[in-house]
Amino acid sequence: MPRAIVLLSGGLDSATVLAIARSRGFECHTLAFDYGQRHRCELEAAEKVAVQLGSAEHKCAKIDLRLWGGSALTDDAIDVPDAAGDGKIPVTYVPARNLIFLSFATAWAEVLQARHIFIGVNSVDYSGYPDCRPAFIRSFQETARLGTCAVDEAWHYEIEAPLQNMSKAEIIQTGVKLGVDYSLTTSCYNPDSAGRSCGKCDSCTLRHAGFETAGIPDPTRYQ
Amino acid sequence: MPRAIVLLSGGLDSATVLAIARSRGFECHTLAFDYGQRHRCELEAAEKVAVQLGSAEHKCAKIDLRLWGGSALTDDAIDVPDAAGDGKIPVTYVPARNLIFLSFATAWAEVLQARHIFIGVNSVDYSGYPDCRPAFIRSFQETARLGTCAVDEAWHYEIEAPLQNMSKAEIIQTGVKLGVDYSLTTSCYNPDSAGRSCGKCDSCTLRHAGFETAGIPDPTRYQ
Repeated sequence: MPRAIVLLSGGLDSATVLAIARSRGFECHTLAFDYGQRHRCELEAAEKVAVQLGSAEHKCAKIDLRLWGGSALTDDAIDVPDAAGDGKIPVTYVPARNLIFLSFATAWAEVLQARHIFIGVNSVDYSGYPDCRPAFIRSFQETARLGTCAVDEAWHYEIEAPLQNMSKAEIIQTGVKLGVDYSLTTSCYNPDSAGRSCGKCDSCTLRHAGFETAGIPDPTRYQ
Repeated sequence: MPRAIVLLSGGLDSATVLAIARSRGFECHTLAFDYGQRHRCELEAAEKVAVQLGSAEHKCAKIDLRLWGGSALTDDAIDVPDAAGDGKIPVTYVPARNLIFLSFATAWAEVLQARHIFIGVNSVDYSGYPDCRPAFIRSFQETARLGTCAVDEAWHYEIEAPLQNMSKAEIIQTGVKLGVDYSLTTSCYNPDSAGRSCGKCDSCTLRHAGFETAGIPDPTRYQ
């Protein structure tokens, strides 16, 4: 079985990506990040999803993006806003987060000789984050090739973003078909201490609308 | 004063880069990584160099590249070899290290609104690491633009690699002119517990030859 690295946050999108990668026959090595996020309960969700969907090996990398903050998710002085939908990049954007996550995934991929790296970015029902767009993903793929032994060995990594052009409802329908248990996942940026979702932030709003449009009961535990 | 992020390892090259960035008038924010490296004593050197050369603020990010190892510097089961110079990428190459380091630097740059990121890569007297070559640096610069708010704000980061085409002797001569105290720096991949250099690894060999060619006494403490 060819190997793949799958970035797994504990949210809805990356769980679906893991199910897709598994359905395509990959031995999946999943990677989560304890980066100082406000919604740290997603890490426990990631572990459960990894088990449910047959990750061959799950790792959690500890990095501290609170060293400089700059986001509502990594600085307690910045509140998580309710969903705005005004087309601007919201304060929940974490500077260079996917660049960092993909860089770590590339390192692990190089060690495992895995040529495929899966990430759950989406640019349809999304928060406008620049690091979720196709141009960034394409560019990263080339940078990863040039910055690793791949360049001397004349091959390249495939950065796979299977959700890129899907609506949230399509993502959920795909996941349900592939057996994802979405009750294990959590998407909220501002959960309470029991891990229950706020229902108001951008991420909760997109997620709930997705279940509604898909005609599938929303299994999220709300506050 | 415009701000810059300067990657600072505690070695000879990055100390010179910091001196160059300061001489160009930047307020320099320096960043080191405690990544599980065998030669961890370089972190203390980085702190001293930051002070000597007037870093405005020095941070050390803790990340764990021993999670997957794959290098003589991050896996105790792989020995540091003596310098080979056979043109192959040596086992001291750390998978995707500069990709990870530059990604963190980009995140901090975004928060500080610094548009310049300095890195001490060199492709003349170097170990052949792919992540030290100009094509990688150029590609990273574009990826960093596309994966951050810069893309919506129509500007880009400048990834500055002032040592790229300099010989080790030229680097040392430049640093001496700019007041770098190289006795504070350490380059060895395999130092003893007192922080003294082995004199045999690739990094020691390149460093010592650089001092010899430059006609400057080598201040390195050897075992």
